[in-house]
Formats: sequence, structure tokens, C-alpha cells
Amino acid sequence: MSNRPIALADALASFDALWSPRIVTRVNDYDVRIAKVEGEHLWHAHDDTDEFFLVLDGELRIALREASGERTVLLRRGEVFTVPRGTEHKPSAPGGAAILMFEPTGTPTVGDRHDEVPDHVDATKGHVLGAEV
Amino acid sequence: MSNRPIALADALASFDALWSPRIVTRVNDYDVRIAKVEGEHLWHAHDDTDEFFLVLDGELRIALREASGERTVLLRRGEVFTVPRGTEHKPSAPGGAAILMFEPTGTPTVGDRHDEVPDHVDATKGHVLGAEV
Repeated sequence: MSNRPIALADALASFDALWSPRIVTRVNDYDVRIAKVEGEHLWHAHDDTDEFFLVLDGELRIALREASGERTVLLRRGEVFTVPRGTEHKPSAPGGAAILMFEPTGTPTVGDRHDEVPDHVDATKGHVLGAEV
Repeated sequence: MSNRPIALADALASFDALWSPRIVTRVNDYDVRIAKVEGEHLWHAHDDTDEFFLVLDGELRIALREASGERTVLLRRGEVFTVPRGTEHKPSAPGGAAILMFEPTGTPTVGDRHDEVPDHVDATKGHVLGAEV
């Protein structure tokens, strides 16, 4: 864990990969992750954890399959949303976005149940920021 | 927990109190809190939890008492920092700031050990956003 403040803009500038979260810092046994995203992720669900999203730049859509049917929420820059545990969801960002997530350390990006993982999505538990630099 | 996205700007516009965090959403047994701050908080420590800060607007200073001595970190807008559990710290914002925090539900703003709480600081475990509207 860094003992200095981290500028999210600098952290985002340090990598290019899409749908491949970087762990910026940890809070107890939770990660703060950032990601660049564009296009579509995949339908997946985290059975045991909620997942928090904050849009840092651009717009993020999150399709949700709920008991009442399917809907999509739109998050603009500076907007937040928590996907409840167990809810199938599919993030997408036609125009690209930068996002921040809070979730327990070890949470896989593709959840516990998911569609086939497309090549452009990184199935990971998050990468350490700067490890590849 | 809201089932719609929340704009942090709108959430911040919904209250005026300083050093009095509002709970925007929950992630499992953690809160995402926002606060308006200006002037000085107080020296305090959370014995059992780290505390995450993201500056949404303005500048936040966090004075830290570490084994190696005292130092102050400066967080500008878009910068993040995690105060490790057990570390005495005192946030301040001479020019005012808006911040986002991530910490376990029930964490008191003044920690488990603290100086006398000044009148301008709200000793709370966070207020529900919009509850006072």
C-alpha cells in the first residue's frame, strides 16, 4: 500500500489495457481498483459480494437482470452505483470510460458465474498498479 | 441502498453540514460516505480499520503520526490515500474540500481514540443521505 497520495489521472495514464483493473490501494481486505473500459464486458454475477462503481470519466452502462426483469442503468462522470450481490450484470461503455471499483480483495472480474469470456476481457482478480511499468 | 445511480454532485448539494459524513451507498458491510470539510478535524485513530479518502473537490491535508515522526500528506482533487489502521491522523482543509470515504459500516468519524471533539465536528457513524431532506 502506497504511503503517498496517488493521483487517479496518473494511475490511469500508466496503463492502456481495457477491462483489466489495476489495484490502486487496499482498505483492510478490500481493493480500490480502477479500469479503462470500452465496448462490452460480459454477463456475470458475484454470488457473495456487492460491487461498487464510480465513473471517473466517460459514461458506463450496467445492464442488470433483476427479479422484475432486465434494465440498464447509465452512470455519467461522478455518478455511483452498487450492484447487489447475486445480481447478473453486464457493464458496457460504447464511448469508453474510466471507472473506480470497491470490492473484496480476490474478487474475480468475471464473477462466480459468467458467460464465455471474450478475448478482450481480462479474467483477473486485479493487477497491482505499476507492476507492469 | 439506492437502486438508481447517484450523482455525487447532487448528493453533496443536498446538505451543508461540515465534517458530517453522509452514507451514499453500502458495499457489503462497508459504507461509501461523502463529506464537506473545511478547517480542522481532530487527531484520532481507528484501531481496527484502514480509512480510504478520495478528494472530489478542493484540497485535503491529512496529518499523520507515524513511527518515524509526524508528516502531512496533501491530496488534491482526484487523489486518493488510505490511512492505515492504528495511525493517528488529523484531516484538515483550510480552503474547504469535498471528500469520499470508504470504511466499515459503524466506523465513528472520531475513531476509537481521539482528542476532545470540537463543536464544529460531528461525532457520528455517518448519516443516511437525504434523511434530513
